[in-house]
Amino acid sequence: MPTVKLVDENDPHPLIQEVFKDIKETKKIDRIPAIWRALATNPQHLSLCWTRLKAIMQPGKIDLLTKEIIALAVSVTNGCNYCINSHTAAVQKLGLDNEQLGEVLAVVGLYNQMNRLADAYQVEPDILPKVS
Amino acid sequence: MPTVKLVDENDPHPLIQEVFKDIKETKKIDRIPAIWRALATNPQHLSLCWTRLKAIMQPGKIDLLTKEIIALAVSVTNGCNYCINSHTAAVQKLGLDNEQLGEVLAVVGLYNQMNRLADAYQVEPDILPKVS
Amino acid sequence: MPTVKLVDENDPHPLIQEVFKDIKETKKIDRIPAIWRALATNPQHLSLCWTRLKAIMQPGKIDLLTKEIIALAVSVTNGCNYCINSHTAAVQKLGLDNEQLGEVLAVVGLYNQMNRLADAYQVEPDILPKVS
Amino acid sequence: MPTVKLVDENDPHPLIQEVFKDIKETKKIDRIPAIWRALATNPQHLSLCWTRLKAIMQPGKIDLLTKEIIALAVSVTNGCNYCINSHTAAVQKLGLDNEQLGEVLAVVGLYNQMNRLADAYQVEPDILPKVS
Amino acid sequence: MPTVKLVDENDPHPLIQEVFKDIKETKKIDRIPAIWRALATNPQHLSLCWTRLKAIMQPGKIDLLTKEIIALAVSVTNGCNYCINSHTAAVQKLGLDNEQLGEVLAVVGLYNQMNRLADAYQVEPDILPKVS
Amino acid sequence: MPTVKLVDENDPHPLIQEVFKDIKETKKIDRIPAIWRALATNPQHLSLCWTRLKAIMQPGKIDLLTKEIIALAVSVTNGCNYCINSHTAAVQKLGLDNEQLGEVLAVVGLYNQMNRLADAYQVEPDILPKVS
Repeated sequence: MPTVKLVDENDPHPLIQEVFKDIKETKKIDRIPAIWRALATNPQHLSLCWTRLKAIMQPGKIDLLTKEIIALAVSVTNGCNYCINSHTAAVQKLGLDNEQLGEVLAVVGLYNQMNRLADAYQVEPDILPKVS
Repeated sequence: MPTVKLVDENDPHPLIQEVFKDIKETKKIDRIPAIWRALATNPQHLSLCWTRLKAIMQPGKIDLLTKEIIALAVSVTNGCNYCINSHTAAVQKLGLDNEQLGEVLAVVGLYNQMNRLADAYQVEPDILPKVS
Repeated sequence: MPTVKLVDENDPHPLIQEVFKDIKETKKIDRIPAIWRALATNPQHLSLCWTRLKAIMQPGKIDLLTKEIIALAVSVTNGCNYCINSHTAAVQKLGLDNEQLGEVLAVVGLYNQMNRLADAYQVEPDILPKVS
Repeated sequence: MPTVKLVDENDPHPLIQEVFKDIKETKKIDRIPAIWRALATNPQHLSLCWTRLKAIMQPGKIDLLTKEIIALAVSVTNGCNYCINSHTAAVQKLGLDNEQLGEVLAVVGLYNQMNRLADAYQVEPDILPKVS
Repeated sequence: MPTVKLVDENDPHPLIQEVFKDIKETKKIDRIPAIWRALATNPQHLSLCWTRLKAIMQPGKIDLLTKEIIALAVSVTNGCNYCINSHTAAVQKLGLDNEQLGEVLAVVGLYNQMNRLADAYQVEPDILPKVS
Repeated sequence: MPTVKLVDENDPHPLIQEVFKDIKETKKIDRIPAIWRALATNPQHLSLCWTRLKAIMQPGKIDLLTKEIIALAVSVTNGCNYCINSHTAAVQKLGLDNEQLGEVLAVVGLYNQMNRLADAYQVEPDILPKVS
């Protein structure tokens, strides 16, 4: 159960109205996801979060499916249930089938293992190729 | 400093020799990265780790660059220095420039933030589209 | 569902009785929260945990609200549902309204992001001012 | 060693110049910390990060020392060396002495323990007081 | 709710049949746990995961109870509910009573605390005894 | 570099003297490890930490080697360098050879992977055997 009362989708606060309208238009959805209704309990923070998410999650030099795959990899590594559900739905909507999803998660699982082994043995970085 | 003495690249143990040879051929490198030399202190585990990593990290329905980006996203989220260095080098070698790297990391940073906010407000998953 | 049967509030074990009584008096509550009833399955550990928590969570050179805010920041960063609920209730009881809670969580979210970016780029500590 | 070449403080890129100037003026410092020079390899991301950090880290309904304490608690929980160094220096500069720092860290340590015990026993949230 | 439809225990896919049969025989159980039915949405990954888990979780130079205790310690530290439930049941089945479980979890809690304090103060490794 | 000046081993503060003496006697060592010298900057916290660690880390219903293995598993999962070094040395001193260490770490790596996969698919706990 949320720790705050979710803000109503029709709350009259001007900043909330502006952000909620933009969320619906940008994401082409007609209901506001729970996370934004919770964040709206502090309208300034809602606005800061949404503005930045919108800027980062538009296709740029990295395509949107790759970005959603990264979001899923991070959410799984952090064990965030809400975000795992949300980003799994997003990658499925963008066309990833269950076998591809399994392949993505295989890589996520593999490096959660390898990260710990590298830490466990305290190995130091190999000499890297020059970075520019 | 590693917690075990790294196994010599020319160690005569047959299983170690077999795996080290395969690592060099598969990755087209002529030196064994430190993590594999540490894992070789238990040859069975070295073999299990390498066999699985090789199977998962070959291009399949997901391409290799996307897989390395996932590996980097996981390693950053776990804060594993060795792996961050290794997978940053890998994505750079596969052609990602600094601006693209920054765009990848922007997504990683964004969802490390959003994951915590979703947890903080204990929001429950929105109704998802049907999954198959 | 808890993995152990929660110990009854009236369990006659002397050490459990002593700790449960002290919890009620110290926290001015009349029911024992679930975590303590679970810990009571090992009475020595219950006693060790409670004694230390009581010592640390009394107001000292840091006031109680700040301490509960720290507890919330840690619990959110670890994604511990029970603790997030408990410490959100605690800061609300101590007077934090939803807008202030949002401001606290904004900082928690921000540094979960910045931590990952600092790790991602492997930047080294800037020269610090002298520490005493 | 950073994974990218840190951007020079005098780099002529207009967006970088603007942000670097604002960082120096806002933080009253005359050198740019390493994290911002790394982020500058993607100027748009640098700008997004700085704008948001500046908005969140100004004193609001929560004072600056409390915000820096939260930043430290998060950074310690995530084990981010760069950020631990940076926020320890910040709280010391704002007047926290070693004994107070120890008291803050005692709370951070305590809840890293308690979070895991609550998860370990899978206890469910106690009934909370009504939230508004 | 799982993010994919769990694969039926009697699914005719040959690789799935082979792995499911081996899971039942090895673990002496007559129902397939949910995690394996989810992994079966990508049969190759199912097979890779099971083969390796089976190899690592057989008694070797470390006995099975100790291995399950390690699995529980890791799962608690990561806050993975499914795995905490599964490995708590496993250690109980292998004979650990509630007092011993409490003693195991006391160590898990203790080092989740101590890890953060060591990071918080940025202490450097003490000189170690020679490693072989 | 530590964020505080490590307290001298011969510091005259009575509580510090008492704890440092007990650490040396209990652990049969003649130098105080860095973590305790850092914690001594807040003597009350030093005392609380040591008293509890001593109580938990004595052999009880769980033997000392198993406890040090748990400490290592937790420290690896959290990526705490100081603690990984310290507990690797401890298990080696208690007789674990490199092959056994590799077997322990194989289990740690395995469940860091499996934890993430269980979270990724959001599988719900299987019906557990009755707990007492």
